[in-house]
Amino acid sequence: MKPLSLPPRLLMGPGPINCYPRVLTAMSQQLVGQYDPSMTGCMNEVMALYRQVFKTDNHHTILVDGTSRAGIEAVLVSCLEPGDKVLVPIFGRFGHLLCEIAERAGAEVHSIEVPWGEVFEPEQIEQAIREVRPKVLAVVQGDTSTTMLQPLEHLGEICRRYDVLFYSDATASIGGNPFETDAWQLDAVSVGLQKCLGGPSGSAPITLSERYVEVVRKRHHVEAGIRENSHRSGAGSRIRSNYFDIPMLLDYWGEERLNHHTEAASMLFCARECAINLIEEGIEPSIARHKLAGDAMLAGVQALDLTPFGNLKHKMHNVVGVEIPDGVDGEHIRQQLLLDFNIEIGTSFGPLKGRIWRIGTMGYNARQDAVLHTLQSLETVLRRAGHKLSAGAGVDAALDTYAGKTV
Amino acid sequence: MKPLSLPPRLLMGPGPINCYPRVLTAMSQQLVGQYDPSMTGCMNEVMALYRQVFKTDNHHTILVDGTSRAGIEAVLVSCLEPGDKVLVPIFGRFGHLLCEIAERAGAEVHSIEVPWGEVFEPEQIEQAIREVRPKVLAVVQGDTSTTMLQPLEHLGEICRRYDVLFYSDATASIGGNPFETDAWQLDAVSVGLQKCLGGPSGSAPITLSERYVEVVRKRHHVEAGIRENSHRSGAGSRIRSNYFDIPMLLDYWGEERLNHHTEAASMLFCARECAINLIEEGIEPSIARHKLAGDAMLAGVQALDLTPFGNLKHKMHNVVGVEIPDGVDGEHIRQQLLLDFNIEIGTSFGPLKGRIWRIGTMGYNARQDAVLHTLQSLETVLRRAGHKLSAGAGVDAALDTYAGKTV
Repeated sequence: MKPLSLPPRLLMGPGPINCYPRVLTAMSQQLVGQYDPSMTGCMNEVMALYRQVFKTDNHHTILVDGTSRAGIEAVLVSCLEPGDKVLVPIFGRFGHLLCEIAERAGAEVHSIEVPWGEVFEPEQIEQAIREVRPKVLAVVQGDTSTTMLQPLEHLGEICRRYDVLFYSDATASIGGNPFETDAWQLDAVSVGLQKCLGGPSGSAPITLSERYVEVVRKRHHVEAGIRENSHRSGAGSRIRSNYFDIPMLLDYWGEERLNHHTEAASMLFCARECAINLIEEGIEPSIARHKLAGDAMLAGVQALDLTPFGNLKHKMHNVVGVEIPDGVDGEHIRQQLLLDFNIEIGTSFGPLKGRIWRIGTMGYNARQDAVLHTLQSLETVLRRAGHKLSAGAGVDAALDTYAGKTV
Repeated sequence: MKPLSLPPRLLMGPGPINCYPRVLTAMSQQLVGQYDPSMTGCMNEVMALYRQVFKTDNHHTILVDGTSRAGIEAVLVSCLEPGDKVLVPIFGRFGHLLCEIAERAGAEVHSIEVPWGEVFEPEQIEQAIREVRPKVLAVVQGDTSTTMLQPLEHLGEICRRYDVLFYSDATASIGGNPFETDAWQLDAVSVGLQKCLGGPSGSAPITLSERYVEVVRKRHHVEAGIRENSHRSGAGSRIRSNYFDIPMLLDYWGEERLNHHTEAASMLFCARECAINLIEEGIEPSIARHKLAGDAMLAGVQALDLTPFGNLKHKMHNVVGVEIPDGVDGEHIRQQLLLDFNIEIGTSFGPLKGRIWRIGTMGYNARQDAVLHTLQSLETVLRRAGHKLSAGAGVDAALDTYAGKTV
């Protein structure tokens, strides 16, 4: 068997994208034991780093060992007891995912929907909260399936007013768009590494407010085999998952260091490096870089007479949907980009399947050269497929967007 | 923030242990897209490699993105409907874990127990199966908490006779002890990378028989957001977890490539390398190397007048329990080994907490030099703590065990 030899793709889809080289290097660090002071020190460091990433003072800021949806499931299954009501505003595929996960946790799921390409007004959500009176409001911030970014800043205040736990999944948006856990009064947030944080999928940072932790602690139950007489079980129903049992995860990450899983050390080192990389750049400069790359890509596709998808006022900085022009075979274009140019752009899901491409500019790839190569190559491939467009206009528009900017 | 700088520990506990350097290097490979032909090709390659590792023809051989217990939970929650009976023979902590996970899946859990340090006779298990008539028999092969290895070779035939699904978790044993999925008629097996396979925690290979897959397919339900009209739901109850929904994981790893999570690519590359490393050495030679290292460590501790724990006839090759002598502070010894010699040995859980150390010889560390350094250092630390022993006898016994052997 040969060593793995993969083509040098430029990943300009909705994620995963190319990792920052330093993040890849971090994973090749040799291990230490799981209770080694250097290991627990590293875990504490990661907690502190992600407090900065999430902009929170929440003590309970840890990693769930799995991909982004592992973080989502941990947050939802730990707080939702069977029959509890949850409200999910759906504006794309990942809203449906939140419903799916909450249903399987036994919750009574209520959802409201807007057409794909739009987002909700706070009033619409407040209205639904008033009707449903849910225990939890669960909402995605950036849904890559539609490229829309749901404004969250007014929802925390509403949730407090109705005594609702406010949870958001910000996997696709954090690091590339503003996100404020404490200022927006969020009770739980989950993310992944594989978007603007520039790492691989496989670790899900989460942060939890005291309000949230108080709720899940009522379901605290230390597993058999390590339970001692001093461990009392909470009055709430047993959490339906062992792996995603947040009170036990907190025991492991906390002072008791009570064994649960064996922490995925290489992914921990990786998550640490992703956070350091972001913090060293600065969160605001990183968001500005994503905005600039996204603006340049948007200007480029528009200059190629292509139509961006959805309400641009609410577009995420780090991904744009592009309508596939009439008469153009979207999959053929993607294939040619991949095979001739080693550039990947995304296809789409559900009602947008076959209707739009999704082009990302995130993490390591939120760079001028990556934007320019993508626009040039898209132009070439479209031209050779017989599609009429303004030669050179895309790359020129992107260069004009970057002109004079130093981000 | 400085780059991570961890001490160069020699990890001689019950795992995690030091990774093979090639496995660490594999994780620093740059990513490709999740549906890139080179990525799906790599996933198929990993399936083929783990069929060899598991010694099976099972088509359905995949990774669960999480630590070992993620694999356990996926196997159990996908096949156990609420009220289904499961039988768990408990001979250490990880038997309790299987119960815990099955209970949370809503199953009716029946267990039988032997004292820690012993294993079950097939007749004891058959007797319990006859009484309980479970849907699933779930048993750990090697339980590191006691260092015992449960013989599995006669259980498959019994399970077939009573129409029971036969599941084993072989995380701690595979690669260092014989394991035969097909010859032993197992229906589901889960493992992790962090023991004899010499990788980090964070990926859980599983293999599933057709019998098992037929059972879980009855609960097939494609998630909302990507479900199409052609997708029909099975008649069984909805699987309680989205993340651990094996039918959906199989859709993602199978020809339909239906999106579920985003595969944790770096851990995939890592799992691939662990398998190749094992197969290149050869499974039988790897087991022989673990046996030799384990024999040498056992001979060494016995020559130091220390008492090994449990029924040695059923000891795992890759870990030995050592009774902490009267008057010796077990934690002090472990501390000195770690701080002065950079060597980690393990403590213990439950009824053995404070009673035994656990010393592993697994994966990369199933090596003569690692055994010798550990024995010498243990001798030095014990001697300096005032414990009387036969100077040099441990390392001599280990060298004698290795003498003339070329593994």
